Amino acid sequence: MKYAIGVDIGGMSVKAGLVNENGAMLEKNAVKSADTPEKLIKNMAGQINSLLAGNKLDIADVCGIGVGCPGAISGEKGVVDILPNLGWKNVPLAAELKKYFDTRIRLSNDANAAVLGEYKYGCARGYTNCVMLTLGTGVGGGLIINGRLYEGKDCKGAELGHTTLVLDGEPCTCGRNGCVETYVSATALIRQTKAAMLGDLDSAMWKYVSGDIEKVDGRTAFACAKTGDRTAERVVSQYIRYLSESLMNLMNIFRPDVIIIGGGISGEKTYLTDRIHKYCAKFYYGYKHSPKPEILTATLGNDAGIIGAAALVTE
Amino acid sequence: MKYAIGVDIGGMSVKAGLVNENGAMLEKNAVKSADTPEKLIKNMAGQINSLLAGNKLDIADVCGIGVGCPGAISGEKGVVDILPNLGWKNVPLAAELKKYFDTRIRLSNDANAAVLGEYKYGCARGYTNCVMLTLGTGVGGGLIINGRLYEGKDCKGAELGHTTLVLDGEPCTCGRNGCVETYVSATALIRQTKAAMLGDLDSAMWKYVSGDIEKVDGRTAFACAKTGDRTAERVVSQYIRYLSESLMNLMNIFRPDVIIIGGGISGEKTYLTDRIHKYCAKFYYGYKHSPKPEILTATLGNDAGIIGAAALVTE
Repeated sequence: MKYAIGVDIGGMSVKAGLVNENGAMLEKNAVKSADTPEKLIKNMAGQINSLLAGNKLDIADVCGIGVGCPGAISGEKGVVDILPNLGWKNVPLAAELKKYFDTRIRLSNDANAAVLGEYKYGCARGYTNCVMLTLGTGVGGGLIINGRLYEGKDCKGAELGHTTLVLDGEPCTCGRNGCVETYVSATALIRQTKAAMLGDLDSAMWKYVSGDIEKVDGRTAFACAKTGDRTAERVVSQYIRYLSESLMNLMNIFRPDVIIIGGGISGEKTYLTDRIHKYCAKFYYGYKHSPKPEILTATLGNDAGIIGAAALVTE
Repeated sequence: MKYAIGVDIGGMSVKAGLVNENGAMLEKNAVKSADTPEKLIKNMAGQINSLLAGNKLDIADVCGIGVGCPGAISGEKGVVDILPNLGWKNVPLAAELKKYFDTRIRLSNDANAAVLGEYKYGCARGYTNCVMLTLGTGVGGGLIINGRLYEGKDCKGAELGHTTLVLDGEPCTCGRNGCVETYVSATALIRQTKAAMLGDLDSAMWKYVSGDIEKVDGRTAFACAKTGDRTAERVVSQYIRYLSESLMNLMNIFRPDVIIIGGGISGEKTYLTDRIHKYCAKFYYGYKHSPKPEILTATLGNDAGIIGAAALVTE
């Protein structure tokens, strides 16, 4: 049996796990994200050693350590260029970690790791070309092309959330305007939900959040649309439109076998994917005579970050 | 020396050529597009036999026949689903051609063939990941990923012109609105040029077309912008913006080594690419810390269709 270590660096905590060749998590742990790269990496080494010791394994028994990380990564160099959540700049993560462990270390964007995890161990097993969109605070993208993770030059591709949906539209963190991220992220849905609530003080959404608009989250509009609230339905319907138009662009570009939706919003599962299919069918899935792709929600759940990161070194 | 036959089916004529393994055209011919698929395929067989006979070759001496064709193609089945220019529907081109020649026959979209030609024999030699946008009547797309032509499911991917630039924007032939094609095709530039001319009867562009607005083509605004006409400059500047925003989307998706611009507009060569670079540099080529891609204009020129089609069977 082969094993791999997966590490998921988040703004709040660093999660590490020991994963077997079937993508099953044998053990995992989490440590609060330290305030300097040095401390965080030292902690991470401790987390990994604890996983190895607890399973009576040596570093030579694992095929490597995969690290998934938000922000801008130079994958080949193993460097974190920018990690805004932790205030990192130009951290040579792979080289530093290599000081602790003599094994293969591979670093990638967290969204890239996520699609690889779903492809190897989750909902996208058996497909050849997969496109993943992660709908969370931002919008992450991941690509599997001809059965391999596609990262683009210097690991800077697959930024699917940073493609224009509305020229001169909402300002985006990337410096441009109207990116997909500014319309279909959970952050965007919350903004759209709040705006609709302020326009309809009788909406059932107010009751749902106990009158406190700050309690609005990515579920609010979906939950109330399902119970028949018209304003919530308008929000959902507009959101489905933004999302489906974004997906049809990706369909036209890749004509993939499967589109995977991850992140918080994917918790709506088939309610979400059924509505997307219904919208896209009207437009022949982007182009006449084009085959209809599968549209699935991610299945690896909370462990996706660790399992995806581990998949980086078993690929 | 290996040879391949390339056939470029156009609305006006069918061009066929004998190409060697270095992508050099040994001989070519062209025949007016016949009005039925049967006649056209019979003529095509004649064109191919003429190339073979003229070079004292047998069909066994070529590695195959590649056919590039506009419209919707089912590559694996070798079927032309729809070819609007010729009124074709569901034509089993590969099977029909196979009746004449016992060799490998491969059919693809003309834009796919074009990028393969540039990658193997033109400006994109030596790169690994290439994105091509062909700016003509419509906007074609082509993708080389990890050194291989990427066509997507059923040869229906790489429709890069059919991605939204402006949600609810200009109506597109594909049935959606605001596609890249409706802003950056030569057709779109002509529409933009005419609109600007009607708004400025003193523009030098009127003299350029001898007062006849129907003579406006994809060169009009570029030519007059270069001589200092302000209205023409506004048209070009807006067009560069549409094109650059479209290209930055592709950069964020693929982070390719090179972007190739083909089609009539690519005749502006470095004047065009310099202005695109200038625009994109302001936005860090789509995303901070991202590497800058090469932006090149296609070099295979008039023979691109034939050479690219031939490349389909030498790949």
